Amino acid sequence: MTTAKTAQAANQAFVLHPGGSFTFEDRSTPTLQSDRDVIVQVIATGLCGSDVHYWQHGRIGPYVVQDPIILGHESTGIVVECGSSVEGFTTGDRVALEPGAACNTCHRCRAGRYNLCRDMRFAATPPYDGTLSTYYRVPAECCYKLPPHVSLRNGTLIEPLSVAVHSCQLAGAMQEKSVVIFGAGPVGLLCCAVARAFGASTVVAVDVVQARLDSAQKYGATHVYQMSTNSPDQNAADLLTTVGLATGADIVLDATGAEPCLNCGILALAPGGTFVQVGLGKPNISIPVGQICDKEVVFKGSFRYGPGDFQLAMGLLNSRRINLDGLITHEFSFSQAKEAFENVAGRTGIKSVIFGPGVDENLARAEHR
Amino acid sequence: MTTAKTAQAANQAFVLHPGGSFTFEDRSTPTLQSDRDVIVQVIATGLCGSDVHYWQHGRIGPYVVQDPIILGHESTGIVVECGSSVEGFTTGDRVALEPGAACNTCHRCRAGRYNLCRDMRFAATPPYDGTLSTYYRVPAECCYKLPPHVSLRNGTLIEPLSVAVHSCQLAGAMQEKSVVIFGAGPVGLLCCAVARAFGASTVVAVDVVQARLDSAQKYGATHVYQMSTNSPDQNAADLLTTVGLATGADIVLDATGAEPCLNCGILALAPGGTFVQVGLGKPNISIPVGQICDKEVVFKGSFRYGPGDFQLAMGLLNSRRINLDGLITHEFSFSQAKEAFENVAGRTGIKSVIFGPGVDENLARAEHR
Amino acid sequence: MTTAKTAQAANQAFVLHPGGSFTFEDRSTPTLQSDRDVIVQVIATGLCGSDVHYWQHGRIGPYVVQDPIILGHESTGIVVECGSSVEGFTTGDRVALEPGAACNTCHRCRAGRYNLCRDMRFAATPPYDGTLSTYYRVPAECCYKLPPHVSLRNGTLIEPLSVAVHSCQLAGAMQEKSVVIFGAGPVGLLCCAVARAFGASTVVAVDVVQARLDSAQKYGATHVYQMSTNSPDQNAADLLTTVGLATGADIVLDATGAEPCLNCGILALAPGGTFVQVGLGKPNISIPVGQICDKEVVFKGSFRYGPGDFQLAMGLLNSRRINLDGLITHEFSFSQAKEAFENVAGRTGIKSVIFGPGVDENLARAEHR
Amino acid sequence: MTTAKTAQAANQAFVLHPGGSFTFEDRSTPTLQSDRDVIVQVIATGLCGSDVHYWQHGRIGPYVVQDPIILGHESTGIVVECGSSVEGFTTGDRVALEPGAACNTCHRCRAGRYNLCRDMRFAATPPYDGTLSTYYRVPAECCYKLPPHVSLRNGTLIEPLSVAVHSCQLAGAMQEKSVVIFGAGPVGLLCCAVARAFGASTVVAVDVVQARLDSAQKYGATHVYQMSTNSPDQNAADLLTTVGLATGADIVLDATGAEPCLNCGILALAPGGTFVQVGLGKPNISIPVGQICDKEVVFKGSFRYGPGDFQLAMGLLNSRRINLDGLITHEFSFSQAKEAFENVAGRTGIKSVIFGPGVDENLARAEHR
Repeated sequence: MTTAKTAQAANQAFVLHPGGSFTFEDRSTPTLQSDRDVIVQVIATGLCGSDVHYWQHGRIGPYVVQDPIILGHESTGIVVECGSSVEGFTTGDRVALEPGAACNTCHRCRAGRYNLCRDMRFAATPPYDGTLSTYYRVPAECCYKLPPHVSLRNGTLIEPLSVAVHSCQLAGAMQEKSVVIFGAGPVGLLCCAVARAFGASTVVAVDVVQARLDSAQKYGATHVYQMSTNSPDQNAADLLTTVGLATGADIVLDATGAEPCLNCGILALAPGGTFVQVGLGKPNISIPVGQICDKEVVFKGSFRYGPGDFQLAMGLLNSRRINLDGLITHEFSFSQAKEAFENVAGRTGIKSVIFGPGVDENLARAEHR
Repeated sequence: MTTAKTAQAANQAFVLHPGGSFTFEDRSTPTLQSDRDVIVQVIATGLCGSDVHYWQHGRIGPYVVQDPIILGHESTGIVVECGSSVEGFTTGDRVALEPGAACNTCHRCRAGRYNLCRDMRFAATPPYDGTLSTYYRVPAECCYKLPPHVSLRNGTLIEPLSVAVHSCQLAGAMQEKSVVIFGAGPVGLLCCAVARAFGASTVVAVDVVQARLDSAQKYGATHVYQMSTNSPDQNAADLLTTVGLATGADIVLDATGAEPCLNCGILALAPGGTFVQVGLGKPNISIPVGQICDKEVVFKGSFRYGPGDFQLAMGLLNSRRINLDGLITHEFSFSQAKEAFENVAGRTGIKSVIFGPGVDENLARAEHR
Repeated sequence: MTTAKTAQAANQAFVLHPGGSFTFEDRSTPTLQSDRDVIVQVIATGLCGSDVHYWQHGRIGPYVVQDPIILGHESTGIVVECGSSVEGFTTGDRVALEPGAACNTCHRCRAGRYNLCRDMRFAATPPYDGTLSTYYRVPAECCYKLPPHVSLRNGTLIEPLSVAVHSCQLAGAMQEKSVVIFGAGPVGLLCCAVARAFGASTVVAVDVVQARLDSAQKYGATHVYQMSTNSPDQNAADLLTTVGLATGADIVLDATGAEPCLNCGILALAPGGTFVQVGLGKPNISIPVGQICDKEVVFKGSFRYGPGDFQLAMGLLNSRRINLDGLITHEFSFSQAKEAFENVAGRTGIKSVIFGPGVDENLARAEHR
Repeated sequence: MTTAKTAQAANQAFVLHPGGSFTFEDRSTPTLQSDRDVIVQVIATGLCGSDVHYWQHGRIGPYVVQDPIILGHESTGIVVECGSSVEGFTTGDRVALEPGAACNTCHRCRAGRYNLCRDMRFAATPPYDGTLSTYYRVPAECCYKLPPHVSLRNGTLIEPLSVAVHSCQLAGAMQEKSVVIFGAGPVGLLCCAVARAFGASTVVAVDVVQARLDSAQKYGATHVYQMSTNSPDQNAADLLTTVGLATGADIVLDATGAEPCLNCGILALAPGGTFVQVGLGKPNISIPVGQICDKEVVFKGSFRYGPGDFQLAMGLLNSRRINLDGLITHEFSFSQAKEAFENVAGRTGIKSVIFGPGVDENLARAEHR
């Protein structure tokens, strides 16, 4: 066992209360509960739409903020303590955190589908606290060492990058295929980048906001298409004409959950194509099921990430095939956490991060290229 | 080349005209157009919902009855002439017909997806004539010899059986899985039978009509569930309770295209489950996309049948693992063809067949068990 | 926590010593080491060729009997104690045991390949003790409730049945395919039974011993072929002629590890066929690699069993699609354990079981049909 | 129908006779035999080891040079005539040729495995003539338009590139995986390039000849390893140490067919790894089957190429992710064809091409970058 945590380390936390108010609180510092646990000092946390949704709406589907909860789940940190059975990590290691701790023993975990584990403890999904605190405890299998050229700040993007990796892997082989991606927010942009790294010859970013499309081309998009207010059929036809895909797109990923996008996407698919809904589906959406039949489309839901996704995301960074520069557009110190939520709610920029309590922000930004 | 066709063989046809009227006409007898063609005397033809739909509505999606067309595509016959390159068939062979002749050379055909061939000539899909005539020409790869214990009459069910085989294969391995099938018409019942033959331990037939459910248990269903007018959520909960599937169904197939069924089915799926829409999807249907994401469901459209499906259907009959007895509830002579359409439109019984012009009906019913 | 174990329960064990001698010893009774552990009173244990191999040769590949070891890993028992987190089991439950306890957290376990876990603790593989003792401790995920109609005696066959299930699943879809299985010992016979249950239309059992082939037809084989001393080419040709497979077999499983069988099997495969080596491969074997290329054969090694295999084996018993009757040909009381090893070494009969210390053998044989 | 062929076009051919002698002959000019045929003027042909093998040994496995045969099958050309049904090609088009014309109608072709077609007519495989002639006839589906930046000379490499693409696709997803490739001849080098394009993070080229390894790094290899005369075990250990792959390689491709390479490769694989034998397997090779079982390795034979492989090869060139420069080390005019065979037999350089009769070599080398 190694430890760098000071004896009376304070654990400051940013807490959401039912009703939507935030407080800063001193929480008890997490301790090892298993010999496979790791305690991490949280350095930076990216804000996700789900964090903001819990704040604004108090729930996501069946998950309700019934008790005070710490939000945040896109985090990096520095290892401060390791359980006696932990191998491969030591105090001081810079790590990205996978925010879901699976039971590892149910039949879904054992079958390699741990994202579907019923006993999953997922950071910032009620009733489990997230990472917006000084310290956080995770099992060792949820820690991934950052490559030296990726800063702890940019490393927070590995979580949404893993979402993109998972979705792109569900879509099947992409080599020299045409891929259309709806939504040019953080996850959509990362899907563009991953699709390109996976060998797609045509990567079309689609959004209603031109400014978002402008940045898409920095992250792998070969073409962009701005959704109009026309019908999905017309948008699909215009999209394919713009891009020059006479027979339809091989793969569509939707990172919007918006009905016009799902419809346009399914209509734009080539026969035999694959559609992946990137985990943002609204409860009920009307889609062209007739087209799904006639073209024998495969429509897949994508939920978080599973075996190998974080490793592959790290690999893409290690091999420098994914460039994260510029995706984080706003930084906030821990004391400004509420401003960060307000900023994301206002949909300014691409991604916002909140540094951990007492963090040296220059250290968090340091990269060794 | 072998031939049993008389020199001046008449080719009587039952023709649908735009507007919905039927006539009996003498058409020119088909001749070999390629050395791989086979001419078949049509013995029996099962009526499909699509045949009736063309009669009643004049179109299915983009396929419009603009010119007179011969309907019918679920047929068996006797070989009367073979092209010079045809191997494995000879005059007098009893055969089932695959009604779609693919181009075999486009990239989809070459990749093993011939059901998605853009140049597919499919019987009774405008502008291609179907099989309700004395003679019909098909390429040799669309002929399948009937086993002796299957009558030419019952052999007409091999086409819908192949639809069921295709859908069940899309659903993935079924061994000891739970499978829920919506719709207890001919295709739904055959899906039940195939799911059971494929090793499903639980096969639930779902319909709104109790009489249909009664026959489902003869064709492989281990349980039945009668849809109520309750919400899809309630129906899904009731269905799972009735069957005793605490964690949801592994696989759902929908052979109805009805929105309540799709919703109930998706809600009843276990995490990681697979849904197959058996080729009857309405243009647009509202479905619980949020559930598809959260449970990482795979939703597949199924279109007709592809490589190996007819062979597997024949194999299931050869090994007597599928029993077709009782599925054909009505027989019509060729001169009664219009009555057959009216009978199917009235939704009486399960399946209706029309014998070919001048066919000895006892011969058509003969089986050598 | 529930317990039925008496306070001073003795734990009698049958111990193999380096050099090959056996002793009966009193060992300390296992206790719960995790709240997910279960303690089982061992009722019956089937003997496997590997048990006999460790006795006769002191090693299998890298696994060497350096210290005294308890053998046995094909076991059933009755639950006598459950850890506090164990769900679904209670004292008195009749269970089959999966003999390998995986770490569940390495990347292979997390990816659904736990049979390849590097930290696997597998019963009767040095240095881990097996089950030939009064009590045995396993994690809860390695316990499977026996259906009432399967006796604890016959339940010992679930382990080799799971080997067969794993191999047959690796072979891919078997519906209406032709499957050739080399070796008509316990695993080969169970492969025949599983292949038949999985829908293979042709199941050919191959062995050199006619008496073994005679029993193959009780367990699913549709054909048998007795290997001759001719060349593999000649044997392959004769086999295909005997069975009437003009274009080769779709799937071959080898449960012998014998060079002539592997060669005959690969030569007998149809183009595009699949070969599965059922976990008994000798270190080095000369095989027709040219044929593997020309026919684009997939040759797979099979190792033990993985996610879902025990569950599927139980399902096949529950649905009574697999019949185990007659496979156990010899029974031994615990005091006769050495005779059991000698019996298996003498290759008499199909399968031998050893009852646990003090077991009521009539209870072990009881079935509730 | 379009035509640019002069009325009395001579068709000069380079002919191998049984016994091994070569002659130049005037052959009749090929004519359209189907309305889907295309006649091509052959511009350049790469020489393959199989061409040289037919010359030196008179046979490859069951294929025997019993009659005079024209060799050559890695060709590009210019379209001079198109059948009436040919779409997408016109006189003057620069094309690469897929040298195998499948029947397209047998069950293997229909199932997307046309490389296993039993009626395949493959150029330069007895009894079918190859492409070392002025003109050659192919069905339209075997023509692929060259991108402007690829010369007709370099386009001859698309055939071996398709071999590499096919093998790499059989190996499964390569993103951020470690891939070891035995043999640094043309096919091995192209496998390196494709593996790199497919996202492999580690690509190890292995050969006995250092000079070949030197060029491997130009074509995608991240590491090289020179096989020693040590045992396969020692070579595998040394290879992994050199590269720093502690737990073994994810994927191995063998483009040598040499027993030490197959053994080293299988020993170097990680548990769960995949081995692809790139179509050069000797009839019989001793391999570590025990390792294949213990590590549950999948060992696949690769045969030529199948659906989509040529298209993907073209795509990799179009997207400039594969660089062919430098792979062709020797050029020969048609009259020097015999010298080209002698050159390849002497194993000088990487790849040799023979220009077609009367070809303007500067035109053949032209690229529009």
